[in-house]
Amino acid sequence: MSEYGIVIVSHSSQIAQGIYDLIQEVAKDVSITYVGGDEEGGIGTNFESASKTMESNTADKLLAFYDLGSAKMNLEVASELSSKEIEIYDVPVVEGSYTAAALLQAGVDIEVVKSQLAEMNLNK
Amino acid sequence: MSEYGIVIVSHSSQIAQGIYDLIQEVAKDVSITYVGGDEEGGIGTNFESASKTMESNTADKLLAFYDLGSAKMNLEVASELSSKEIEIYDVPVVEGSYTAAALLQAGVDIEVVKSQLAEMNLNK
Repeated sequence: MSEYGIVIVSHSSQIAQGIYDLIQEVAKDVSITYVGGDEEGGIGTNFESASKTMESNTADKLLAFYDLGSAKMNLEVASELSSKEIEIYDVPVVEGSYTAAALLQAGVDIEVVKSQLAEMNLNK
Repeated sequence: MSEYGIVIVSHSSQIAQGIYDLIQEVAKDVSITYVGGDEEGGIGTNFESASKTMESNTADKLLAFYDLGSAKMNLEVASELSSKEIEIYDVPVVEGSYTAAALLQAGVDIEVVKSQLAEMNLNK
């Protein structure tokens, strides 16, 4: 397994599940955990589920991806309280996590992965 | 209703559905049609479904968004065969369509919408 895992936090449970389905096809040896939606299955995110998703990832070093602003806030709070090494990326949630997954699976050096992601940075 | 509609084509039916759920919240007066996955519900896209999704949109001017490369190819072929005015954007599928939806709903001039999307352009 890759030393680095991937975490996805979306406002929609279906986006989160769909991204997982898409990226696990190209990254069978990367631990990927995901969550989307609020407690009632509607649109939203919350701190508890973001935290649980990070902690349930088998990797201790995580690359985290989100769709919209308030998901980032929850990821930030959760990562501050975690003992894991977590980097949150302001990149497109689908395309960014797909890129990271494919590169990690290929065993590309983490610095190269990070620099590829830096090129996808959005103001979000 | 907005003169412009939004089309989403994803490799995953769940990503497509989730994006619709997310963006229709901010764009109740924009016609949004979407499709994802292959005929069997697996990961993939095809020309027929991309075409059907464009034609079923009530708007004649469409902004089209996709996740990964082969979805773009299907959109391109479908748009060449359509009588509609269709622009395909190489932007993040979730964040780009969300931005377009919110701006169209707000009645922002289409040239401003297009220039905002241009700033989100990815090499994909």
